[in-house]
Amino acid sequence: MPTAPDRRLVILAEGNFGFHHGKTAMGVIRFGSDKVVAVIDSTQAGRNVREWLGDTGRFDIPIVGSLNEALGFIPRATALLIGIAPTGGRLPESWRAVILAAIRSGLDVLSGLHTFLGDDEEFAEAARAAGVRIIDYRRPPERMVTAVGRRHLPGKRVILTVGTDCAIGKMSVALELRRAAAAAGRSTSFVATGQTGMMIEGWGVAVDRVISDFVQGTCEWLMEEGESRGDWVLVEGQGSIDHPAYSCVTVGLIHGCTPHAMVLVHRPGLAAHDFDHLPDRSFPLMSLPDAIRNHELLAGLVAPSRVVAIALNTSNYADEAEARRIIEATALETGLPVADPVRFGGDWLWAQIEGATDALPWVQPAVGGEARA
Amino acid sequence: MPTAPDRRLVILAEGNFGFHHGKTAMGVIRFGSDKVVAVIDSTQAGRNVREWLGDTGRFDIPIVGSLNEALGFIPRATALLIGIAPTGGRLPESWRAVILAAIRSGLDVLSGLHTFLGDDEEFAEAARAAGVRIIDYRRPPERMVTAVGRRHLPGKRVILTVGTDCAIGKMSVALELRRAAAAAGRSTSFVATGQTGMMIEGWGVAVDRVISDFVQGTCEWLMEEGESRGDWVLVEGQGSIDHPAYSCVTVGLIHGCTPHAMVLVHRPGLAAHDFDHLPDRSFPLMSLPDAIRNHELLAGLVAPSRVVAIALNTSNYADEAEARRIIEATALETGLPVADPVRFGGDWLWAQIEGATDALPWVQPAVGGEARA
Repeated sequence: MPTAPDRRLVILAEGNFGFHHGKTAMGVIRFGSDKVVAVIDSTQAGRNVREWLGDTGRFDIPIVGSLNEALGFIPRATALLIGIAPTGGRLPESWRAVILAAIRSGLDVLSGLHTFLGDDEEFAEAARAAGVRIIDYRRPPERMVTAVGRRHLPGKRVILTVGTDCAIGKMSVALELRRAAAAAGRSTSFVATGQTGMMIEGWGVAVDRVISDFVQGTCEWLMEEGESRGDWVLVEGQGSIDHPAYSCVTVGLIHGCTPHAMVLVHRPGLAAHDFDHLPDRSFPLMSLPDAIRNHELLAGLVAPSRVVAIALNTSNYADEAEARRIIEATALETGLPVADPVRFGGDWLWAQIEGATDALPWVQPAVGGEARA
Repeated sequence: MPTAPDRRLVILAEGNFGFHHGKTAMGVIRFGSDKVVAVIDSTQAGRNVREWLGDTGRFDIPIVGSLNEALGFIPRATALLIGIAPTGGRLPESWRAVILAAIRSGLDVLSGLHTFLGDDEEFAEAARAAGVRIIDYRRPPERMVTAVGRRHLPGKRVILTVGTDCAIGKMSVALELRRAAAAAGRSTSFVATGQTGMMIEGWGVAVDRVISDFVQGTCEWLMEEGESRGDWVLVEGQGSIDHPAYSCVTVGLIHGCTPHAMVLVHRPGLAAHDFDHLPDRSFPLMSLPDAIRNHELLAGLVAPSRVVAIALNTSNYADEAEARRIIEATALETGLPVADPVRFGGDWLWAQIEGATDALPWVQPAVGGEARA
């Protein structure tokens, strides 16, 4: 499912644009190559995406209150993209009418929900009648294969973003580092492991939708694909290793991709895991030194890996000077290169990562001393 | 899908009875409540299950070369159970004829394969015509819910078997400990997390078949069910935390069940993970001290837990005295109670586990110090 050169999107982000559950909308706008005509969020109608992402022409995207308004823009949109990622991935019932109206107006529908819109009788029938496509990015590959202990090809370097929580920017950091690596003249690829990354990049697998027995086998296949597309393979991480709901996915990704190096993403100011949990519970995040140690220990259960850099998401600190002070303090605390590559650019951090990663043995000793190319 | 009181099984274990991939057959015979009429394995026809499991009437089960022979025994079998668990769970093509013949002879078909026999057009049509049922134990529940941080109910104790590899006896140990606990007068339940355990117990979920995003949510539901059935909840573990193919499932189970205590299963004499991997690779097992430390660290990322006992599978050592020497040496090495509960009985080990587990705080401090009942 490649991105189409002439695809023009309306993004449905009702009630969520700019918030946690609207991260798909923001990611596609910021990193995608598709033209975005408008965002639908009636709670913020009249605003503009520029207010969040900066006053460049690229981000001059109106937020409107309805599909009808969005369809008034010329050139007209060609697809409705579902721009939220609710916990569990279910479709809010209230959106059904909007999706049906979009289909009947001739728009393709692009969705990353766990509930496959293409399997819904009413949507499928309407799409057939209107001659449009419904693309469910989370639909897993038919391939059901367990991992076999695949080796990385010689000369390939695999770098995985990991994090102290979900939805704090692991995909954005991987994309920004890929951009910086390409700008530095490196042969690169980006491996999308979630639906938003797939919408941006045009290929990948939403690993959280894969049957647990096949997560690691699927990751081996993703590595094969990623290595065929570039020498420096930037892999989007998922969840966190201490997440009460999602660590299964995270560990499968780490043990299936066997990255040579990891970049740890953290959002200063966030103290506890942000997900739909019991109201009287709280799950605190690890400290950064613990997170570094635990990731290296956990990865090393299958193949050694090192955390070579920290990418901070400083969006909780509007003041730039304060953000930079936090970055410096984190560098002192961890002894690693630290930056906010999404806010301040990733070139410097990429150079540090490349240097640190080049110093690692490229033939990794596997656990027990066996060579791993 | 409860076990039926008058169910009589023929078990298909062609080429595998007594070996790694025939573990379902052996588990159902050893621990199940169904009468087993015969085992089909043409490579071992003429032998008897007694040769493996001891000369008691219960295990006087002939191994025959064909379905026709198996159907000659009176009282006649009522179901064909697929007694293997191949890597990836796929159906060997050569078995198709046997399964069809069983269906046409009026037998139900019980399967734990990843490939659902009930979804196969030819099998489904034949079953309809013959009026028999096809039960796919690995079919996941419709429920697609992520974990919410459920607490164990007050007074319930959850004990999970974990292990240094797959297929070394985690289910058998949990079943033997449940038997011992019940014999000691405790209120118990057994939570089946794989297809063989489900065939034996009549309920559960094959967690390796669950979509990775929902593994931990499914485990929370399993805990709710297990706690409703008994005070001491014995949970069957899966895979191992350092397994190149299956650690995703293992970690999901540990973080979803948040056991108060773990029993570590190990098979002395096994040096490396035994699974279908590249022929020129090897993945050594952890040492027991490493395994204890790593399990406690990994579990503790979500909720604290302790390894309170070691259950050895000494089947690589035919000589009883040698097996007992290994058990003693392991106790010295780890400082924990050690036994082979499946070979020598689980009563003593259960008493040790109950004592050690009773000494743990039943209101577990969660990570960060929050109370967890």
